[in-house]
Amino acid sequence: MTEVVVRPMNGGNGLHSYSKNSTFQRKAIEAAKELINKAIAEKLDIKIFSSSNSFKIADLGCSVGTNTLLAVQNSTQHPEFQVFFNDQASNDFNQLFTSIPPNIPYFAAGVPGSFHRRLFPNNSLHFVHSSCAAQWLSRVPEDVLDKSSPAWNKGRVHYSNSTPQVMKAFEDQFAEDMDNFMKLRAQEIVVGGLMALILPGRLNETPHTEAYLNKAFEQVESSLIDMAKKGIIREEKIDSFNIPIYFASLQEVESAVKRNGCFSIEIMENIPHEKPQPKVMSSTLRAGLEGTIKEHFGDEILDELFDTLVCNKLEESSLITESCKSVGLFVVLKRKPNE
Amino acid sequence: MTEVVVRPMNGGNGLHSYSKNSTFQRKAIEAAKELINKAIAEKLDIKIFSSSNSFKIADLGCSVGTNTLLAVQNSTQHPEFQVFFNDQASNDFNQLFTSIPPNIPYFAAGVPGSFHRRLFPNNSLHFVHSSCAAQWLSRVPEDVLDKSSPAWNKGRVHYSNSTPQVMKAFEDQFAEDMDNFMKLRAQEIVVGGLMALILPGRLNETPHTEAYLNKAFEQVESSLIDMAKKGIIREEKIDSFNIPIYFASLQEVESAVKRNGCFSIEIMENIPHEKPQPKVMSSTLRAGLEGTIKEHFGDEILDELFDTLVCNKLEESSLITESCKSVGLFVVLKRKPNE
Repeated sequence: MTEVVVRPMNGGNGLHSYSKNSTFQRKAIEAAKELINKAIAEKLDIKIFSSSNSFKIADLGCSVGTNTLLAVQNSTQHPEFQVFFNDQASNDFNQLFTSIPPNIPYFAAGVPGSFHRRLFPNNSLHFVHSSCAAQWLSRVPEDVLDKSSPAWNKGRVHYSNSTPQVMKAFEDQFAEDMDNFMKLRAQEIVVGGLMALILPGRLNETPHTEAYLNKAFEQVESSLIDMAKKGIIREEKIDSFNIPIYFASLQEVESAVKRNGCFSIEIMENIPHEKPQPKVMSSTLRAGLEGTIKEHFGDEILDELFDTLVCNKLEESSLITESCKSVGLFVVLKRKPNE
Repeated sequence: MTEVVVRPMNGGNGLHSYSKNSTFQRKAIEAAKELINKAIAEKLDIKIFSSSNSFKIADLGCSVGTNTLLAVQNSTQHPEFQVFFNDQASNDFNQLFTSIPPNIPYFAAGVPGSFHRRLFPNNSLHFVHSSCAAQWLSRVPEDVLDKSSPAWNKGRVHYSNSTPQVMKAFEDQFAEDMDNFMKLRAQEIVVGGLMALILPGRLNETPHTEAYLNKAFEQVESSLIDMAKKGIIREEKIDSFNIPIYFASLQEVESAVKRNGCFSIEIMENIPHEKPQPKVMSSTLRAGLEGTIKEHFGDEILDELFDTLVCNKLEESSLITESCKSVGLFVVLKRKPNE
């Protein structure tokens, strides 16, 4: 099995930390709050946990920061709850644990590991929440890094402005990862248990190039290309790098769920995402992508890349990005009985 | 409720880290390994988890380092296991999580919080392991810091060489903490579940002054007194500081278990502790006490205190300490049915 790509959000509590630069993701959670409450009220069968002693919740791809705790507060209104905060082992769990307030109404635990792998025992979870996480692929599709493949993504680091072959490779990788993700979660979630997924994505009718987040990622790509032109980074470094993220539509998620067969779709809707100001957006991009970019290009380029180039490009392109749609996908799945 | 004292072991992987300076504690675990295997084989009723999906293990006061993982390997030989590593929120969980090897045969989770508080849902654990942790008291007994009390521990930071009143105050605090610890764990452990406790302690017939670890702590005390005499620290700082640790005997643990009433004693024995060389012992003391001492006296005294003074005193007193007994307490308790 290929090693899962590791790229946690920026740790700590400093200027470039994810904790301080995740208003965008926070808004997604706030928008989903009412929807999750409604889903729990209407879709959760209380019988699934009457035989067990406690209600077990997992937050997959929790990262670090107040969003993590906010998401969980949304769903805890009853006594004995155990909440598992999951993210990769390299996530800043120290920061997360010390920011848990005293006297929380649940038992907290941290679970290190990629959600592209098994994380919990069989039938041990009642509710899974994952916000702004499952858009991260388990890896960059092999073909886009293969010089001999028609899907080689030469000179680019993102798929949205690229060839149909590159786009297809990312689309397929997302479908494969989603299928695997649901297979794993189907083992961990009790029959009748719910899974709420919030994903940054695009509207069904919107092509990749017109989705706001793709436009934002294209500014990162174009900034890296500028840096290569100026000789700050080598061009081959761009050829060998791709951001392992894909922005799906509800249609794609629906197909993946149906193909997988372990879950029924209970709720599925788009939630509007506010588009942040260029400065805020470049910080958001930095907090999320810094780890991945640093690993490949080194950390000396980060300040110029995000704080100057990406920020300027976002400002320059604000008229274009304004017309782009920014949406989240909100999907609630229920674990079907085993056949 | 009084706030529980927070003093995690030194984090990271550096020179003074707990991870690199815990051979002493490691030996305790190795010595207990066979005993724990035997306890599980003979004392664990397989029926207690046949109805559940997985066997849930908690390691309380896990700290950071390979000991944590070693202790757990000792008890995992079957398929679906979930292991909860617990220590205070300020423990270095990042270091712990990144040191978990790939392909471990269990699902790992970290649980932040003091074991003097509730950590898990009702009836959610099958086996609890706690090594070299429960000797830490929830707080320094109030009286020993109270100038108006006959138990005021003026001019000292440890109890073993002090007045009977001080000794009694620590003895009572240990009894109270043990009772509370068992009340909490009795809620968390299923009926029939086991709890293995390993504590550094002393033989039943040995007075506190003749226990090796007390002698070692007295060298820390006497080094601090030397520093106060030299004007490096203020004398009042010594009056207002006590190490919140108590070395009990099996007799004391037995009384606490019987008074508490929730557990039966399945195994209870002394395990021999090897006495480390002075240099190793001063590093062991530093890794364990540094956090507590730094908080009160500041970090500028640490090098001189441990690496020079304590180390020299341990060397000078090696003839005395050689005659002292160093033992661990090994106790396996079983959760009794509710009456």
